[in-house]
Amino acid sequence: MNATVSFLGDMLQTISERGRRLLALGPRDADGDDMEALCDTLLSSRGEASGMALARDILERWQGYDAAARRTFMRMLLERFGPQTKLVEKAIEAYRSMPGPKALHDLHKAAEPRRQELIRRLNLAPDGTAMLVRMRETLLALKRAEPDLEPVDSDFAHLFGSWFNRGFLMLKPINWSTPADILEKIIRYEAVHHIGGWDELRRRLAPEDRRCFAFFHPQLVDDPLVFVEVALTREMPAGISELLREDRATIRPAAATTAVFYSISNCQAGLRGISFGNFLIKQVVEDLRRELPGLQNFVTLSPVPGFAEWLAEERRAEASSLLTEADRDRLALLDRPGWETQADTVAEIRPAITAAAAWYFLKARGGDGRVVDPVARFHLGNGARLERINFPGDNAPGALRQAHGLMVNYLYKLDDIETNHEAFIGRGEVVAAAAIRRLVPAERATAGAARREAAGKTRADEEASS
Amino acid sequence: MNATVSFLGDMLQTISERGRRLLALGPRDADGDDMEALCDTLLSSRGEASGMALARDILERWQGYDAAARRTFMRMLLERFGPQTKLVEKAIEAYRSMPGPKALHDLHKAAEPRRQELIRRLNLAPDGTAMLVRMRETLLALKRAEPDLEPVDSDFAHLFGSWFNRGFLMLKPINWSTPADILEKIIRYEAVHHIGGWDELRRRLAPEDRRCFAFFHPQLVDDPLVFVEVALTREMPAGISELLREDRATIRPAAATTAVFYSISNCQAGLRGISFGNFLIKQVVEDLRRELPGLQNFVTLSPVPGFAEWLAEERRAEASSLLTEADRDRLALLDRPGWETQADTVAEIRPAITAAAAWYFLKARGGDGRVVDPVARFHLGNGARLERINFPGDNAPGALRQAHGLMVNYLYKLDDIETNHEAFIGRGEVVAAAAIRRLVPAERATAGAARREAAGKTRADEEASS
Amino acid sequence: MNATVSFLGDMLQTISERGRRLLALGPRDADGDDMEALCDTLLSSRGEASGMALARDILERWQGYDAAARRTFMRMLLERFGPQTKLVEKAIEAYRSMPGPKALHDLHKAAEPRRQELIRRLNLAPDGTAMLVRMRETLLALKRAEPDLEPVDSDFAHLFGSWFNRGFLMLKPINWSTPADILEKIIRYEAVHHIGGWDELRRRLAPEDRRCFAFFHPQLVDDPLVFVEVALTREMPAGISELLREDRATIRPAAATTAVFYSISNCQAGLRGISFGNFLIKQVVEDLRRELPGLQNFVTLSPVPGFAEWLAEERRAEASSLLTEADRDRLALLDRPGWETQADTVAEIRPAITAAAAWYFLKARGGDGRVVDPVARFHLGNGARLERINFPGDNAPGALRQAHGLMVNYLYKLDDIETNHEAFIGRGEVVAAAAIRRLVPAERATAGAARREAAGKTRADEEASS
Amino acid sequence: MNATVSFLGDMLQTISERGRRLLALGPRDADGDDMEALCDTLLSSRGEASGMALARDILERWQGYDAAARRTFMRMLLERFGPQTKLVEKAIEAYRSMPGPKALHDLHKAAEPRRQELIRRLNLAPDGTAMLVRMRETLLALKRAEPDLEPVDSDFAHLFGSWFNRGFLMLKPINWSTPADILEKIIRYEAVHHIGGWDELRRRLAPEDRRCFAFFHPQLVDDPLVFVEVALTREMPAGISELLREDRATIRPAAATTAVFYSISNCQAGLRGISFGNFLIKQVVEDLRRELPGLQNFVTLSPVPGFAEWLAEERRAEASSLLTEADRDRLALLDRPGWETQADTVAEIRPAITAAAAWYFLKARGGDGRVVDPVARFHLGNGARLERINFPGDNAPGALRQAHGLMVNYLYKLDDIETNHEAFIGRGEVVAAAAIRRLVPAERATAGAARREAAGKTRADEEASS
Repeated sequence: MNATVSFLGDMLQTISERGRRLLALGPRDADGDDMEALCDTLLSSRGEASGMALARDILERWQGYDAAARRTFMRMLLERFGPQTKLVEKAIEAYRSMPGPKALHDLHKAAEPRRQELIRRLNLAPDGTAMLVRMRETLLALKRAEPDLEPVDSDFAHLFGSWFNRGFLMLKPINWSTPADILEKIIRYEAVHHIGGWDELRRRLAPEDRRCFAFFHPQLVDDPLVFVEVALTREMPAGISELLREDRATIRPAAATTAVFYSISNCQAGLRGISFGNFLIKQVVEDLRRELPGLQNFVTLSPVPGFAEWLAEERRAEASSLLTEADRDRLALLDRPGWETQADTVAEIRPAITAAAAWYFLKARGGDGRVVDPVARFHLGNGARLERINFPGDNAPGALRQAHGLMVNYLYKLDDIETNHEAFIGRGEVVAAAAIRRLVPAERATAGAARREAAGKTRADEEASS
Repeated sequence: MNATVSFLGDMLQTISERGRRLLALGPRDADGDDMEALCDTLLSSRGEASGMALARDILERWQGYDAAARRTFMRMLLERFGPQTKLVEKAIEAYRSMPGPKALHDLHKAAEPRRQELIRRLNLAPDGTAMLVRMRETLLALKRAEPDLEPVDSDFAHLFGSWFNRGFLMLKPINWSTPADILEKIIRYEAVHHIGGWDELRRRLAPEDRRCFAFFHPQLVDDPLVFVEVALTREMPAGISELLREDRATIRPAAATTAVFYSISNCQAGLRGISFGNFLIKQVVEDLRRELPGLQNFVTLSPVPGFAEWLAEERRAEASSLLTEADRDRLALLDRPGWETQADTVAEIRPAITAAAAWYFLKARGGDGRVVDPVARFHLGNGARLERINFPGDNAPGALRQAHGLMVNYLYKLDDIETNHEAFIGRGEVVAAAAIRRLVPAERATAGAARREAAGKTRADEEASS
Repeated sequence: MNATVSFLGDMLQTISERGRRLLALGPRDADGDDMEALCDTLLSSRGEASGMALARDILERWQGYDAAARRTFMRMLLERFGPQTKLVEKAIEAYRSMPGPKALHDLHKAAEPRRQELIRRLNLAPDGTAMLVRMRETLLALKRAEPDLEPVDSDFAHLFGSWFNRGFLMLKPINWSTPADILEKIIRYEAVHHIGGWDELRRRLAPEDRRCFAFFHPQLVDDPLVFVEVALTREMPAGISELLREDRATIRPAAATTAVFYSISNCQAGLRGISFGNFLIKQVVEDLRRELPGLQNFVTLSPVPGFAEWLAEERRAEASSLLTEADRDRLALLDRPGWETQADTVAEIRPAITAAAAWYFLKARGGDGRVVDPVARFHLGNGARLERINFPGDNAPGALRQAHGLMVNYLYKLDDIETNHEAFIGRGEVVAAAAIRRLVPAERATAGAARREAAGKTRADEEASS
Repeated sequence: MNATVSFLGDMLQTISERGRRLLALGPRDADGDDMEALCDTLLSSRGEASGMALARDILERWQGYDAAARRTFMRMLLERFGPQTKLVEKAIEAYRSMPGPKALHDLHKAAEPRRQELIRRLNLAPDGTAMLVRMRETLLALKRAEPDLEPVDSDFAHLFGSWFNRGFLMLKPINWSTPADILEKIIRYEAVHHIGGWDELRRRLAPEDRRCFAFFHPQLVDDPLVFVEVALTREMPAGISELLREDRATIRPAAATTAVFYSISNCQAGLRGISFGNFLIKQVVEDLRRELPGLQNFVTLSPVPGFAEWLAEERRAEASSLLTEADRDRLALLDRPGWETQADTVAEIRPAITAAAAWYFLKARGGDGRVVDPVARFHLGNGARLERINFPGDNAPGALRQAHGLMVNYLYKLDDIETNHEAFIGRGEVVAAAAIRRLVPAERATAGAARREAAGKTRADEEASS
């Protein structure tokens, strides 16, 4: 791989220099006009002859840019590489005078921003796909301050949706004989349960009752898109420590009855919104079932990242359709540092907090009318069922902060996936185990509403929230 | 590969059947309504949960269709899966009342035919890409009789252009240790110089002074997209027989000075118009140059498929700006069967025919103002130079019929490619060796014009003509 | 592979030339003295520094040798590269004066021919293993005329036995996506049922109810050692044509109940006597059983190469313990050309010939007391059971000549393999189906004895005969 | 790999159990008689039918053995599985009555210990080669206390020499995209400069001016045999810290002039005495030269493990042909802890210690007449030249203890390798740079002699010492 790339590098170097002479460009002066000229050339017929070289030149310059120059570049894409308005006007006129498939097609074509073709041609460069993904990562950051960049982002997302179509992805197992440069990325990308180093990684990958799978794209050979970590167990776990602690007993895979998806992480910030996690889980379910016919249950052990914030608001609210005074008192124990280390305090809190959690999933809705919890939206949207609430499930500081240590299991049952998905997407119904439904306090009027702010997370199961 | 596919097959079978029950469909009744319902479902939110299974179901039905049903399907795509006109109208209004990037973006989106997303989702099916390519092959055939299907074809072409972006293609050498199932396809796809069987194939691939390269797509692992056959020689060849005859002497690759591209074939009829040949030649030039630093010349030995027809017309024309009476007399010898076997007849014809050929390339233009010969348009468009006219170069029946046995060499010189390309594409100038330019008879008024009908060829060097 | 080899080639070239200067050798004068000096040097301490280069030099010279020079070389190995007799004498003395493990060990070491270490060092050369295998092929041919070369052959065989230990072999499927250069060898090496070309090969490999497996050695990557062809069927076949005819119906592998090993061929004449076929069949049985749990029977369809000759002798014998006058009359029909095309003649012959065949397997023994038929010795020695006699089973000219068209099935039943093997090897008992045992005529005195000459065959199932 | 092994595992399980029934063995009673019976069976004809299963059974039992049982097993190999003395006697008689190649051959064969064939058949077991290598590791340890086991060890070594012939080894680069399970072994096997963990490993493998290469055997796919670490530099290094320190500057490989072999480690204790290091260095020299034509020098940076002990003895000796009183005084500074941290003390010691080192290499000889230093014997035996003495070169505790921090460079110059090797092996001459030869004090009588005890090291460059 590297040899090829570096050879092409040499070759393209030459072409790029010639290219620059042709364009009468100074050596890498990197000012906006130049860049616009280069992009125009790449879109011209000359771009057909020297596309690879020009594409590489542009991407290389871009990599050398500082934050300001990158912003300028993105605004240029917005303002100068949209569709040609004259052609759009003409196409509208033509459509109005004689509607029909042909006119619609011409209108669609006329309205296609020129930057779409530009991005396609930039992909000709060696390693172009990876660089374009990183380019969008920058764009997403810029978009927060300048939301009018949305059309540019939309064009990137449109093309990535096509290029990273699930039909082009390859599922690969990640294990202890995976190349180190990929494993290093697993350590870095893990977004749910932090991996403290190589020894910890080894404990998650090497034992025969642990599995990990990732999707790869043919153009990003050593960089995963999304991965999921799986534990093979004999029962549905109630907390993360029983899966991760060092001294746990290993079981034979053939003796396992349950596959637990305990961590799923997106790897490429630049691919935000291009959903893979859904396909990954279902594919892994199929592959594991085939390899280990003894597996009967496919469940997650999942965080509840929106819970603490929602509960705080609920507790602050003067009138809550949910909380009684007694509940409020018990939940007040959560404010005492170290409560999680005292068994009786935990026992005292439990009934109130699990009832609140049941409400949080089944009744509470955000300002947009959606289920509050992003991880819940992901799994329920995939057709999973909310199976069990575990308190406490994770005493790591982050989990305490976000969810008072609460974790839940979602159940993936192939035969019900479609029905569950329909219920959730079509009618907004949350499918949950009877035991959870019974936890919901007798109907009062819903007073509290919840909000959720997006954070910089890349957890794959939050994908559905964006 | 196969194991996976067949396993997925079993799995999807189950889902599909469940899918059909959900849709209350009879077992494969294959009528249009069903199909439309399935396609609508695939585009709906339910499609998100069961996309792979639905996609496979649709593609499988389609494969079972007869010609009439396939036509119905395509017309359905045209008529029912275009954009939603109400949304388009709204987007036009919005754009008119407040133009800008956002409105243009919304207009573009509204005008996107729903079949584009449908095709993207069909690609989720195992082997979906290959099946969609075959689907377009059918569509291209239908389009001849029903040209209003163009918008549907345009959507396929648009997506294929994105999916088969050169950035996603892999160059692989084809040789005698290539798997037989791929070699079998090389025999079948060869479109320029027929390969008569395995022994003949072996003579083209196994000797150390013969090379072959193909582009592959990651989703079509055992099916090449385009391939080129190369001979390593010590001089630019004047005819095909010196390259292909059985008793030729093999040379050591290190002793070769010249790489001859003597055959380039597109493999997938369904990818017509998605150009790879251009990239393939340039990449092979680079790779060979790197492997064999002794190589100084990169040339083709190419057919001239439009020549005989053009010449016939020229000879029929009462007034020709090209042909003198003497020329006409000499060219009349071409009408005698077997002229090519008589050395003196050939010698007599040669001056007139090579002068005519020079004119054909440099002066003659089609009704559309373009160079008449499709192969010439391909190589000149790539930035090659017309280097030499060889008469006779190929006495195979097809070559005699299409070009009176004439062949030409095009020269690929890396340093000139861009300039040549610009001259040809930008100003319509044909870059040719001085010796050829000198062959053009003193300027007379151009009287003859030429036409060219498209044939069912898949020769890659004709791609530029479409 | 090739790149490496050719690079090493260049490197070694240089060393070899320096080596020759050191040895003050003329350029490739190929006379015996030189060669002896080179071999001595390779065995000396200098050989440690330049072993690869010297080894290559020797093997290259050897390849350039004509038949006479090769014979000289082999005799040199016999006469000059045996053990050093003085050391042997000393070791015998030491052993006699003080026997024990140490003295035995020293004696063994002293008696080791120097050519064993020489062959080991020749193996250092690039591609050395392959060249040594070819060297032994020559040696085997020479040994027929000069049987005193046996000790040299024994040393080659000893080392090959170690190097080609089954623990080092890799089983690989051979199918239609196997590289063409390997398939070409399958065509060439097939020793049982001739493969007439690529189309015929395709029919044996491509259909889903056909399999082929080969053993490879890591040093002979593109050259199989032994391969077996398998048909998946629904019943035990009675003749070869039902397996090989062009218009047969293909069945789904999952529907197959029976795997038929219908051809097994050794590939490397130089590895004669190093047995792989035994391991190959058992491994393939295991692999197929695992892939296709529906398979219940593993049988061969085998030739009977010694039968016609044995029967001729029996018929010539004045007194036969086997044949009655009536039998003799019926068998005389075999002398009429074309008998196999007439159904009633065949029917008339059948009872006599199958009874004779039963006798041939169960009662007849060669001069050495062994079962006459080499293929029978191979399969019975592997622990298979003689299952059925088929007449006629193969009307190809060779099969008619060797066995009057008779074929048999041997049954491999994993649970009985060891018992059968013990019975055959330990007590000389042929395990056969009851129906065959019943065919043996009532006990008369065995009068006839059979002989068998070895031919130049490489059929793997004859291996046991040597 | 694993799938296959575990499948074979299941299969063999069955056979083994049947095997045990046949042998009427209790379940794993592991006493000596059983084991002897199993080994006899493996050598019998029954072993031909069930070799794989029996071999596996024996090796598995062996793995379950404790130290005492393993010793019993080895003594059994010595006492019961030698050659059959009757046959040896007969072969001696035959040889005496009629000497000649045939009789010598028969004698050699008769004297072959039965355990050689036993070991060959044990190699049939899945993973047999690896287990036999571990078996010899145990044997080597036992041999220290019971040197009469030497003949058994000699048989293992003989077979390993054949199986691990350089012709069967594969050179593979080790880098940051090597599978983690192999890298983990590199950390463990490193025997020269300790690797403190994954981050340190990364610094040795990932930078583009660092390389590592290992030999692998096809049967031990994920376990290297020997590896060498290489630094690409612009000059010959004088100390290890300039190569390993974290903050060093990386250079472009194309700018490097020198390849430094700074660590070479054997990995398999059970392969002691089977030499690979020699071949590895030469192969790596060739490969690097080919990849990086700018490399002009190939040198080591090597430890001097025998130096401190030898010097101590020299200093203790009343009369030294080497040390003057002034030298003794200066060298006494070495006895002060921390001397290496004081620049002026180091400067004061330097002249005396480098002169002593020059003497150590060029003049001092062990009781066996050989050069004292094992690492020196390895590189000089390979044909390298002693190029420079560096003081101090390594201040790690081990290096201070063994060599007072001294390191040396050996130079590998392809054109001189054979001459140097001849000089060293043939005439005992140490080839050294003139600057080192000049350091040797004017000739006095050699009084001191040195000894060296073998330690448990597996450094590959000590191999020559054994």
